[in-house]
Amino acid sequence: MFALMSLLVVGSVAFDSVKTPFGQAKEVLGGSATYFSVAASFFTKVSLVAVVGEDFPEKDIQFLKSRKIDTAGLERAKGETFRWKGEYGFQLNEAKTLDTRLNVFQNFWPKLPEAYKKLDIVFLGNIDPDLQREVLQQVTKPKLVALDTMNFWISGKKDSLIKTLGLVDILIINDGEARQLSGEHNLVQAAQKIQSMGPKILIIKRGEYGALLFSRKSVFHAPAYPLEKVFDPTGAGDSFAGGFMGYLAKTRKFDDANFRKAIIMGSVLASFNVEDFSLNRFKRLKNSEITARFKAFKNLTHFENL
Amino acid sequence: MFALMSLLVVGSVAFDSVKTPFGQAKEVLGGSATYFSVAASFFTKVSLVAVVGEDFPEKDIQFLKSRKIDTAGLERAKGETFRWKGEYGFQLNEAKTLDTRLNVFQNFWPKLPEAYKKLDIVFLGNIDPDLQREVLQQVTKPKLVALDTMNFWISGKKDSLIKTLGLVDILIINDGEARQLSGEHNLVQAAQKIQSMGPKILIIKRGEYGALLFSRKSVFHAPAYPLEKVFDPTGAGDSFAGGFMGYLAKTRKFDDANFRKAIIMGSVLASFNVEDFSLNRFKRLKNSEITARFKAFKNLTHFENL
Repeated sequence: MFALMSLLVVGSVAFDSVKTPFGQAKEVLGGSATYFSVAASFFTKVSLVAVVGEDFPEKDIQFLKSRKIDTAGLERAKGETFRWKGEYGFQLNEAKTLDTRLNVFQNFWPKLPEAYKKLDIVFLGNIDPDLQREVLQQVTKPKLVALDTMNFWISGKKDSLIKTLGLVDILIINDGEARQLSGEHNLVQAAQKIQSMGPKILIIKRGEYGALLFSRKSVFHAPAYPLEKVFDPTGAGDSFAGGFMGYLAKTRKFDDANFRKAIIMGSVLASFNVEDFSLNRFKRLKNSEITARFKAFKNLTHFENL
Repeated sequence: MFALMSLLVVGSVAFDSVKTPFGQAKEVLGGSATYFSVAASFFTKVSLVAVVGEDFPEKDIQFLKSRKIDTAGLERAKGETFRWKGEYGFQLNEAKTLDTRLNVFQNFWPKLPEAYKKLDIVFLGNIDPDLQREVLQQVTKPKLVALDTMNFWISGKKDSLIKTLGLVDILIINDGEARQLSGEHNLVQAAQKIQSMGPKILIIKRGEYGALLFSRKSVFHAPAYPLEKVFDPTGAGDSFAGGFMGYLAKTRKFDDANFRKAIIMGSVLASFNVEDFSLNRFKRLKNSEITARFKAFKNLTHFENL
């Protein structure tokens, strides 16, 4: 029965226009919930809650469906789909946003289809913390809830965000956000402060430098995979979260050892995602490649005892 | 017999004045060769080649001697000892240099005492690449030679540096220097280019993000230890190199597996060094603490196979 359970995600579906030093892509499928869902779909069924406009093509819906992603919660609203335009320099670590058009996403009010409400593993993507709670309240018996957020909500809706933080098990943010949220520069101190706000587990993403996992018991460090070619970093963090949550939804073991494996799985998925524009690398990604890169991460980090 | 062999190091001995957000220290013992030697001294005897001025106090010489560091190659020249003054902001990742007075270091011409010439494990600290070769030529039968350098030599004496690179086994530099030396932004591509210049082993230091080890066979990633309090980062890179080379000099096994352990040892020593000003943390550091932190690095990076 567990194997049939699905992973619930709420977030954004968008069209991205991206320029990197290695090429460009125009109006390609993107959005945090899209990257998350497709990454997670290598491990589990996914139930997606998001909104698209009238312009969203049937072929993209079909692609999501082909990835075992339930689109019953993908609302189609009057207007245009969310659009983002950005550019990366050679450093590839931070996008310069050229244009953001929220469009239908602006008035997004997530409603869970009846069948979604019994799902117990939940990823609340980066949306208004009020809406994140709104989604969570519709879930009957949440067992593992993870949250993403961003500087915009930390500075603009901190009280609401802190309320939401009290309801979740896992927070996944980047180092700048962790510092902003805690008011501490040192990440160990930042983690302690954030954990005292609610989440037992804090995952701090550090882009090309990997990620740190703070649990109540220990700290775990996962490197990013040293790739010879990084083509487009868009969606790396969402792919990371998708691989992480997808692996947890598949294995349903919520202990320290399995969180660590899940973090590596997240890093594996992120490492593939950046090898091409949009979701192109995922479209041709094989399970055997995932397993091989997991082993490569083992080799990348392994050393013998004294 | 091997256990009695010493590790040869050439570099700078200095007095540092340092300000960090947590305090300040004035005219305290520092210099790359000092940090290197003291870190290495936890594993091996060290033979130091450097220069100090007439103002260098006997108590500091005695301190070095108390750490099994041979000071026969520590020249005392007319004039003042090298002085450096710097300041760190909350980010603690890069010092702002306020003042540099090379003093006696300006005319440093390293001469090896007769007993040093038969040593076979050599660390050529960050000095003029001409002088690095000068030192190496005095060594009868080098078995393992590692090199440090900096942006100043990469831009100002590139031809000489490339000549020196052809003579060494290991290069230890930071990510900015690796990019500058190779002309490649991507570190994997930078590493390949630098390895083709001579060094079989390239170690790229990334400060608070750890280090990458590129060998002919594989890539290894060592994290930096997530400390709750970083007090003063001065000397972290030199302590890293000292722990790395010291462990290799002790174990005398120059294979991939042992290089990895040595990198972790370097990270262990660096992680202690930043906990206090100058060499203060090393002055009270116990072997049992080193072993315990090595294990902590294991716990920090360990995950199970799939």
